[in-house]
Parts: sequence; structure tokens; C-alpha cells
Amino acid sequence: MRYIDLNSDVGEGFGQYNSFEKNELYNTITSANIACGYHSGDPNIMDYTCGLCNKAMVEIGAHPGFPDLLGFGRRKMDVSFNEAANYCLYQLGALNAIAKTHKKKIQHLKLHGAFYNMVMKDYKLSQYIIKRVKELDNNLIFLGLSNSNFISACKEEKVRVANEIFADRAYDKDGNLVSRKIPGAVIIDKTKAIDQVKNIVLYGEVKTIEGSKVKLNTDSICIHGDNKEALDFAQEIRRVLEGEGVIFKPLKSFV
Amino acid sequence: MRYIDLNSDVGEGFGQYNSFEKNELYNTITSANIACGYHSGDPNIMDYTCGLCNKAMVEIGAHPGFPDLLGFGRRKMDVSFNEAANYCLYQLGALNAIAKTHKKKIQHLKLHGAFYNMVMKDYKLSQYIIKRVKELDNNLIFLGLSNSNFISACKEEKVRVANEIFADRAYDKDGNLVSRKIPGAVIIDKTKAIDQVKNIVLYGEVKTIEGSKVKLNTDSICIHGDNKEALDFAQEIRRVLEGEGVIFKPLKSFV
Amino acid sequence: MRYIDLNSDVGEGFGQYNSFEKNELYNTITSANIACGYHSGDPNIMDYTCGLCNKAMVEIGAHPGFPDLLGFGRRKMDVSFNEAANYCLYQLGALNAIAKTHKKKIQHLKLHGAFYNMVMKDYKLSQYIIKRVKELDNNLIFLGLSNSNFISACKEEKVRVANEIFADRAYDKDGNLVSRKIPGAVIIDKTKAIDQVKNIVLYGEVKTIEGSKVKLNTDSICIHGDNKEALDFAQEIRRVLEGEGVIFKPLKSFV
Amino acid sequence: MRYIDLNSDVGEGFGQYNSFEKNELYNTITSANIACGYHSGDPNIMDYTCGLCNKAMVEIGAHPGFPDLLGFGRRKMDVSFNEAANYCLYQLGALNAIAKTHKKKIQHLKLHGAFYNMVMKDYKLSQYIIKRVKELDNNLIFLGLSNSNFISACKEEKVRVANEIFADRAYDKDGNLVSRKIPGAVIIDKTKAIDQVKNIVLYGEVKTIEGSKVKLNTDSICIHGDNKEALDFAQEIRRVLEGEGVIFKPLKSFV
Repeated sequence: MRYIDLNSDVGEGFGQYNSFEKNELYNTITSANIACGYHSGDPNIMDYTCGLCNKAMVEIGAHPGFPDLLGFGRRKMDVSFNEAANYCLYQLGALNAIAKTHKKKIQHLKLHGAFYNMVMKDYKLSQYIIKRVKELDNNLIFLGLSNSNFISACKEEKVRVANEIFADRAYDKDGNLVSRKIPGAVIIDKTKAIDQVKNIVLYGEVKTIEGSKVKLNTDSICIHGDNKEALDFAQEIRRVLEGEGVIFKPLKSFV
Repeated sequence: MRYIDLNSDVGEGFGQYNSFEKNELYNTITSANIACGYHSGDPNIMDYTCGLCNKAMVEIGAHPGFPDLLGFGRRKMDVSFNEAANYCLYQLGALNAIAKTHKKKIQHLKLHGAFYNMVMKDYKLSQYIIKRVKELDNNLIFLGLSNSNFISACKEEKVRVANEIFADRAYDKDGNLVSRKIPGAVIIDKTKAIDQVKNIVLYGEVKTIEGSKVKLNTDSICIHGDNKEALDFAQEIRRVLEGEGVIFKPLKSFV
Repeated sequence: MRYIDLNSDVGEGFGQYNSFEKNELYNTITSANIACGYHSGDPNIMDYTCGLCNKAMVEIGAHPGFPDLLGFGRRKMDVSFNEAANYCLYQLGALNAIAKTHKKKIQHLKLHGAFYNMVMKDYKLSQYIIKRVKELDNNLIFLGLSNSNFISACKEEKVRVANEIFADRAYDKDGNLVSRKIPGAVIIDKTKAIDQVKNIVLYGEVKTIEGSKVKLNTDSICIHGDNKEALDFAQEIRRVLEGEGVIFKPLKSFV
Repeated sequence: MRYIDLNSDVGEGFGQYNSFEKNELYNTITSANIACGYHSGDPNIMDYTCGLCNKAMVEIGAHPGFPDLLGFGRRKMDVSFNEAANYCLYQLGALNAIAKTHKKKIQHLKLHGAFYNMVMKDYKLSQYIIKRVKELDNNLIFLGLSNSNFISACKEEKVRVANEIFADRAYDKDGNLVSRKIPGAVIIDKTKAIDQVKNIVLYGEVKTIEGSKVKLNTDSICIHGDNKEALDFAQEIRRVLEGEGVIFKPLKSFV
């Protein structure tokens, strides 16, 4: 049996500004990464989004970002290990409290934007954050970039860990995502993107931008659902993989 | 045996701005209300302050305020019941996560500034917030103004509750604090303030600004420790009451 | 000759969050109230919005709000006269600098949301703010609610002043807007709303919610353009009034 | 005649948090860099600080920082040229409006913290910002690190420019400040620091950390005045240089 999780960022509004996702998204994904108030999200939106997840039986994850609402958490920020861990704990705890009033436990943690990128590459920073977070909840699943230093650190720290892959992003020969600044980094052709997902999920390998093949583990596919096209694509991925016998379930049921 | 708790607001710094309390304060109080990032406080200061509390064996409380750093949470804010509860849960959860990595459980919740004032007066708002918060933690102690509507709502909701009184503030014939705008609202004469505390704690009554007497329950005395004089006064209160046989202990041990 | 200005709030985005107005709005209005960063708006959006105004030959106004992004400046805030004036000057100056790099001068000042409501009612606060602002620019036009205390204060302070009216809001016998909490406060029937605008603009009077008539001065009509229907309605108002010989021009050309 | 300006950062408080400088500082400096609300400072503090400068006859400069109150503008931030210029204009304009109500014109612009460091090194970014800012005010003095790329860009753009040097920081053979991470970067010995200042101001050269000498232009000395020792040191610098015939005057009178 091949199980896969579909995750998406949600609740990324603020005050008067609505979140970007379409409501139908909740019927497509199995896990939701809820913004926790730093790069976006606020207590009311978090509460509302927990309610949507609950209704759609989608598992909840915390999606902490850097404290940079103006930059949507996408700007690199010089933070110490201790600051990084505290930013993470603060937001994780905030969501946990709100989720608990919906009788939901937080299934997973997935960092956002520049925070995600920084941690994925840095083994020691990963280790530091994981150590602090597991003192809070040692059953939490850490969702990160497949084959990254973060994943290695999770294994070393013996926490539950999940590899995520991206359907529409090119990989290089080291199994890393190709930077968006490089031509070909984003796979625009939907058929090619579906093919890539199938190869990664079913055969555990991806054809790199250089033409070689590398192995990639996958527990979850990251998808977008902020416009009709993105949502259609997400549903297509799900349909195609279900046609191949893949079963979509939240991370906690198989990781 | 007469037990009393001494509480004080702490950790009210932000980024480069230090918290106001003197370090010796931690040796005087039994419970600390830690700012949670909205009116002041940030994840690093919260982490640092939890460490200080831990070392001094002071119990930790969450001290959520309105999202108004510029106004230090002292400005009234039109918020709905749901917003108020979500602001409270968010901050409570954030502190809880950080405290937990120090192996500390949050003992109590005390609202801050304009949020405190708003809730103390409003029975229905109190009730709404208490209902939401107890879904999160039904062992939490709710610390509020002695004899206020908030205290009544806590009793109705059957949560652990603690009455706080103020040493240096005048009370009116209804047992409410006299508004700071009215002359005589703040008791400047330290001997008078000590006398007031003794009467409230030992005999359960206070001489009002009108000259009558009203009954007041007390579980905790709120003190300041942001300058030498305030700290000396706090220590004097403790010394005098201990001389009368009062034992100072954190709320959780007797409420 | 009857001249009228059409004003609308614009640039009310933040960071990743887009402003609400449709681009066609800029071809309908004659003056734009640009958000200045406190309730919404940021330096990049302000710069971009000044560019749009410039291109469409729309005059620029500052639209300062309370420092409450989470509440979109719609929540009452206890601020002193001095704070209110400083918030206003800060935002006005910020927009002025950006507008100047587009070779635009700020035509007018219109406060936002709860700040607007607070100032319109309070003669002394109005006076205080106007005195401070005119030290900065004594050619600026102060745009406020027709017949309000703010307008009276502007006249007393001998600054340029413009009365605004609302097409789709009911008025009471004192010439004030009926609170949105009262049924009938918002005029949903578009024909009725157009009739109201015609009566106010052409005959200087409005039929009140009580059935009586009151006199109202008008220099500008406030319109919305954040969805297709609102924009259509704004264009219809303009078409109808132009049919009656009204000429639409920015405030500065006739106030 | 040798003229020199003494500049210092001021008004770096926020809401309830006071600015760091001692009041006596205003009697020592000739130019003040006022925080403009992004890394610190708020409209009320800006207003109050303009008043202090006015009373002490100290010239006013804008001190814009990155929008990162939590990090006090000391964290590198990925910003585009356009964002950088808009952040700068926004804050400059905001201070200008408040200063104008004190009948003060802004004398100079000095960037803060990580924003300062980023711009000093980057010629093209400097050029972009200077071009935008001079559209606003082509009489403004740009204060930057002596001999930096920023200074070169100012000259190329033909704006008024002032070189600043630091008394207590070591320089390297290229005339750059030695990074604080390198031992010896901060000159702790006050006599050595005074000697360095004298050599730079009187003879136009500094002994570098490598032992060689490099030429440095100086129009202004940057000093601190946030504690008694720093203030004493600043006064000592002034006394020693005045003993050598140097006259302290604000930048605008000699640049």
C-alpha cells in the first residue's frame, strides 16, 4: 500500500485581508499548514481556519514564519538559533491553544518561506530547533524538504519526520530545488509536472534539470489552492495518483 | 493558616527594550504575570523570563494584552467577544509552549491593562472568555479583581479563581477601584497603604474613599517592582504580613 | 456652474495583500484618499498608487488612520489630542514625500475609519489637529463629513475645507449619518440612492430617515470601487449628475 | 578654520519605552539623527525629540531604518532598490512633517543599522536611493561612512554629502570599519580613541588595524550618549578638539 499526504498553506490572511485559498481546497488536501500570526494569520483567522479543517477532516499543522508581515516572511532574516527556536515555539503554542478549543491536536510543524529555506539547509540550526520543539511535544511530525539537512537532523533527533516534494519545481542533481532565479526552475507544463510527481511518488526518483536521476523520499506533496487553476491541478494530481492505487491520508496515520 | 500570593507583571520589554522589573523582584513575589507579545513581551524575553521564574521558584502566569504595542495595551479597543477570546488563547498558548520547554506549567491567567479593565466589568464577556479558555486548560487559575464581575463569572463557570487586591489604590463603597482620574485614587502614604493591605488581608475589609467599610476577598496582592522604591515597598508588605503570621505561597498551592 | 468631486479610498493593501479597488475606479474618481501605512498601505503600495493617480490625472489625498492594521483602523482608540495630531502629521508627511517624487502635491486630507468618526464629532480635537496640520501646509484641503463639527472647526481655523456626502447612507434629522446598527442605515435600493445624491447635490437637501428634510452642503461624493457593482454604481452617479449639468473636477479647482 | 559636526542617534524609543539618550547629550552634539518609526521611534517621540533639538539648537536629521522593531533594524533584510528607496522616503517625509510644525527643516539623512551597512557598500543601491531622495529635497545633506561607496555615489549625483567617522572603531587598510566580530574592532582604551579622532580630524589619516595608514575625510563624528560614560567620552572628544582649534558646528553651515 502506498500512502501519501497532500499539504497546503492556509489561513494566510490578516485582519481585513482574506486568506488566499479557495474553500474547495479543504476537500482536496489531507493536511493544512496554518499561518500563526508572524508572516500572516491572526488569532481570528486561525480560529476560523481550524474550524474549516475540522469540518473537512483535514489535519492541522503549524506554519510559523519570520516576524515580517510586510515581507510575508519571504525575506531572509539574521536570527540566532535561540531566536529561531523561540519564534517557532511561540507560534506553535499559539496555534495549539486555538486548535485545542476545536478539540484538534497539532499533527505537524512546517516552517514558512525564508524561515523554511534557512532551516532546511542548516543542520545545526535544524537540530537546535528540533531539540527545543520536542520538549514541547515529542509526538509532533516535522515536515520538511525531502532529503534536506533538516530531515537528517530530524532522524538524528529521533522525532517523527515527513518528506515533502513539490510537483511543479525542478530538482538538481543533489536533490535540491532549483532556485527560482534559474530558468526552468518552475515547471509550467502541467503534464510534465504530473509526470514528475508520478515518478517521485511511485518510483522514488526524479529527473533532474541536468538530465540525471536522483532518489527522493516522499510522504507529502505540497500543493497550492489559491486560484482555480492551482486547485484544478491539485485535484488532477490526486486523481492521477489515486488511479495508480495511491491512497491519500494525513501524515499521522502512516508516518 | 492564612496564605497569600504576591503577583507582579514581568517581561514587559520588547526587542532591544528591556523589561522594567528589577531582578530582586523575583525573590519577593510568588507568582509572575509574563507579557505575551501583544502589549509587550516577545518570544526571547518570554523565554528569558521563564528562566528567571524557574530559578527563583516563582510560578508563571500568562499576561495577555490587546494588540497595541504602541499604546502598551492601555488603550480601550472595540473587540468582539470572539476576538477577545482568540487574543487571549493565542497569547496563553504562545507562553505555554515556551514555559513547557522550561518544564513549567502555566499556573494562572491575568489579563493586562485595558483588556483587564474591560473584562473585569463585563460579566458576559468574562463568561465567554472563561468558557473558551477552560476548553484549553481546566486547571488554570483565573486571577482577577477582587469581587468583580469576572470573579462571579469564574465561580459560575466553576473554574479555579483568585481575587487580587491593590495595596496603593483606594476603593469605593461598591468595592471597586477608584478611577485614577479622581483625587485620592492612588495612596501615596506608604504607611496608609500598608494599613490598607493589613486590613484587607487579615480582616477582609477595606475603608473606602467615602469612609465606609466594604468586604474584600484576597488571594493575591498585586505589586510593582520596576524601581527601587516600589521594590522596597513590596518587600515591606511582605515583611509586615509575615510578622502577622501570613504565609506567602503561589496561588496553586491554596486556591 | 455646479462642480463636484468624486473621492474614494485607495491603496488599502499591505505587503502581499493587494488593495481592494478595481483599476477602472481611477477613471471615475477625481480625488483619491491614499492609505498611509497605519490602518493599511505601505511605502511600496503608496508609491505604486501615486503612480496610478498620476497616470489617471486623479488628485492625491492623505488618508491617515489609527495604528491598528489588525483592526483596519476601524476600532475606536483612546488617543490624546497630541497623539492624534502626531499620527496624522506622520502619515501625511510620509505620503507627501512619496507623492513629491511623482511631482504631485497632496491636495487634501481625509481621516480614516474610527479616526474619521472620532474627529468629525469632536470640535476641540478637530481644532487641535487642524492647527497642527496647517503649520505644515496651509493650502491643504480638509475633507470631512458635511455639516460636522470638523467642518465648523475648519472654518474657524480658516483653512480650505470640503464637505463630503455619502450616496448610500441614510441621514437623520440633525444631518448626521444614521448608525449602521440601525435598520435602514444603508440604502440598498440603487435608484433611491441616486435620488438622494441628486437631491443633495442639486437642491442641497436630504430626506431624513425620520421623513423630514435637512440642508446639506456638498463638495465631494464618497464612493466605493472595490467590486464591480460598487464601481457600476459610482459610474451611474457620475453619469446621472453629468446629465444634470454637474461638472466633475478635483476639489482644488473649486474649493 | 576646521569645522566639525558631532552627530548622535536619538529618539530611539517606542510607545512606553523611553529613548536611550541622556538629556545632556543635546548640549554636546550639533546634529541629531532622529529615529522615524520603523526600527524605533514613534510620532509622539519624534515630536518630543524635535522639541528637544529645537531648544538645544541641534540640527535635525532623519534616521530611517528597516521595518523591524523587534530586531531594532539591525538585521539584514532582502529589499529591492525600490523598496529601500520607498522605506527611506516614507520615514524622511514623516519626520519632515513633524519637524516642520517645530519650524525646523531636516538638515540631513543618515540611514540606520543594517540599512546603513547595506547602502554604504552598494554603489548602485546608493545611487538609486539618492536619485529618489533628491527629487524630494535637493538641499538635503547625505551623511554616510567616510570614503564609502555611498559617499562616491553622492558625489556622482551632485548632492550635498558629509563623511562621518567613528572614534572608537578600528579601521582596516581599505579605510573600512573592522567588523565587530574581529578582535580589536572596538577601541576600548579611551586615550587611544581620542588619539584616533585627533589624527583623523586634524591630519586626515587613521592608523589601521594592520598598522598602515589610510586617508579619511571627516565632516562629522558619530558619538553615543546613552550612558554616563559614553556621554563623558563625547564631551572629552569635543573638549580635546576644541583645544586644537576645531570649531563644532552643524553640517549645514560648512558642507
